Amino acid sequence: MKIDSVDFFYVSMPEVLDIGDGSQDALLVRVRAGDHEGWGECEASPLVSIAAHVAPMSHSACKPVGASVLGQAIDSVSDIDRIGNLVRANSLDLLQADHTLSGIDIALFDLLGRKQGEPVYKLLGYKKQFAKQPYASVLFGNTPQETLAKAKSARSNGFLAGKFGWGPYGRGTVKDDADHVAAAREGLGSDGIVLVDAGTVFDDDVKKASLRLVALKQHRVTWFEEPFVSGALSEYHALARMSGDVKLAGGEGCHNYHMAEQMIDHANIGFVQIDTGRIGGISVAKKVADYAVHNDVKYVNHTFTSNLALSASLQPFAGVEDSRICEYPTELKALAKELTNERIVPDGNGQIRVSDAPGLGVSVNLATVRKYLVDAEIKVAGKVLYRTPKV
Amino acid sequence: MKIDSVDFFYVSMPEVLDIGDGSQDALLVRVRAGDHEGWGECEASPLVSIAAHVAPMSHSACKPVGASVLGQAIDSVSDIDRIGNLVRANSLDLLQADHTLSGIDIALFDLLGRKQGEPVYKLLGYKKQFAKQPYASVLFGNTPQETLAKAKSARSNGFLAGKFGWGPYGRGTVKDDADHVAAAREGLGSDGIVLVDAGTVFDDDVKKASLRLVALKQHRVTWFEEPFVSGALSEYHALARMSGDVKLAGGEGCHNYHMAEQMIDHANIGFVQIDTGRIGGISVAKKVADYAVHNDVKYVNHTFTSNLALSASLQPFAGVEDSRICEYPTELKALAKELTNERIVPDGNGQIRVSDAPGLGVSVNLATVRKYLVDAEIKVAGKVLYRTPKV
Repeated sequence: MKIDSVDFFYVSMPEVLDIGDGSQDALLVRVRAGDHEGWGECEASPLVSIAAHVAPMSHSACKPVGASVLGQAIDSVSDIDRIGNLVRANSLDLLQADHTLSGIDIALFDLLGRKQGEPVYKLLGYKKQFAKQPYASVLFGNTPQETLAKAKSARSNGFLAGKFGWGPYGRGTVKDDADHVAAAREGLGSDGIVLVDAGTVFDDDVKKASLRLVALKQHRVTWFEEPFVSGALSEYHALARMSGDVKLAGGEGCHNYHMAEQMIDHANIGFVQIDTGRIGGISVAKKVADYAVHNDVKYVNHTFTSNLALSASLQPFAGVEDSRICEYPTELKALAKELTNERIVPDGNGQIRVSDAPGLGVSVNLATVRKYLVDAEIKVAGKVLYRTPKV
Repeated sequence: MKIDSVDFFYVSMPEVLDIGDGSQDALLVRVRAGDHEGWGECEASPLVSIAAHVAPMSHSACKPVGASVLGQAIDSVSDIDRIGNLVRANSLDLLQADHTLSGIDIALFDLLGRKQGEPVYKLLGYKKQFAKQPYASVLFGNTPQETLAKAKSARSNGFLAGKFGWGPYGRGTVKDDADHVAAAREGLGSDGIVLVDAGTVFDDDVKKASLRLVALKQHRVTWFEEPFVSGALSEYHALARMSGDVKLAGGEGCHNYHMAEQMIDHANIGFVQIDTGRIGGISVAKKVADYAVHNDVKYVNHTFTSNLALSASLQPFAGVEDSRICEYPTELKALAKELTNERIVPDGNGQIRVSDAPGLGVSVNLATVRKYLVDAEIKVAGKVLYRTPKV
């Protein structure tokens, strides 16, 4: 069968706040081929990723993403790989293309899984899945007291692990940051798994980041995430040499396989964090998971949006027994919460698994899409290249 | 003074062909502050880079580029650095932002240079500039005979150096490729500088690329450019170990400082090729030039568009005596050729220099902009976020 249509739906909360909460908008992709349909989600900046799908060609290596997808045959996983390679070659100079491709790749896996009656992780070659230990992913409070309350709340909601990120961290004194980390440890309890996300706040300043290590070690933090921007490999490496039992984590900014490979090869990270909605989709994420396993680095999903994105992010390492921890957003905005009809929730032991239903195992709530749908239109030389489609 | 306006002009040839010629469209940026004005150019996909400037905020690290630029103070080079850092932080999750920023950064340098009556390379701290050896940058012919004719024509037009790229290279047999390289050498003459650009055609296949080395060595090719995609560091490194006197060149795909740093650190390249219109502008390109000098790697501009882009690409290494070779596009489409009132042309010795006039030393031909201007409009939730401005 051939890909008949690729439709993008830009949804957003009525008001988007200037906070580090990625669940305030979303870009959904619906792919149809023959009688089959699949859904995916791209991470970040819906309008720009739509533009990358429809933009006029600039030259042979700067074509819109859609040109390499529409009309392509889609009968097996190898077709998804082939389409991804086509997009990467034909849109080599179109930077945003990887983000756009990500949602399409996810939708193609959903479509193929539904057609074949298999969950996506089986299409990827995993015989079985292993339960993951979800961590509650929350923003640091504005004060240590707020962070303490958030940590306590996470624990009382059944989360043994909690990740605290962004907000004031790295923006005040070393002592301020230490107080926040102490609060997180106190709130989660002495057996809790405390994770800290610096949100690239130190850019590439090893000295500044290293000053935080004392508190991170003292409070037995499992990983210190994104002290630096993704590309700062030698800075990661230098910090890792000082961080002892606190492992570095990073990789969410990677938008292709090679960037993740480089972090594993040269940044000395203990955990590689991949956003399936950015790196080029499930195909590329699985390739990173394989490489991580091979190099004794733990794979972790990066997910701060809907349960559709969560399912897509869990599939690539669902069958990796040794990569146990997974990100699990707990402060989702209504839009992201209501976006799927099914939800992935912790079991009695606080563990999560993806559904064994075909495809991604979650379906999109069309009423939610209609409710939050943003009207957008892109016109070039009098021709409408994009207009928000009917749901 | 403060940045009052940032305007984008999308220009295009009436017909864009499916060939590796990046001069078929362009995205110009005009920045105004007080009584001053500067112009810049972003490389690739005008519509998508415009969208990145105006897209609605998704969250605190996914803001449109414009939000970090408009209203900012601009009085010195350090302000340009500060604005670049702001964009990188506030648009961390907006992949296309680096391309959009590039044109703005260039325009800010032009503006500041004009205001201070200095050429941009002096603003960058260079006391003087050194003449560069331009290479004619042409696409391989469809047949070795065509390549031979192109090489002869380049030499008879005064170019000692020629780069042949894309087209059939790497898509046929090893023998086909060898014939093209032999033709290039024959056409340029035995004292000519022959450069070969594979245009990432081997993706990350070291074996395939290595089969081409015999002919490249035999015909004394100075560099073998982009055998692989930018991120394939270990593949570059492996090939470099076999390439002998033929040095590897790459880096045009880098969209931030760290990517270029990684190529220098881990890919074992002899030449780092930077497109000022992609990497984040003149500020970032200069930082790469400094790092290249420090690591005994030659810096080369990547330019396949107008003389505005060419000037912007030459400034960052104008004062580096040891990086002598520069890219000089010779097959520009009318749009790119007519875009500037002044042109950078080889002197009697076949060498080129940037103008010593203030700013970039080239001015935009507004009649050309009007002639090739593309009407575009982006509307979100009933609000026009972009409409092609008046020239």
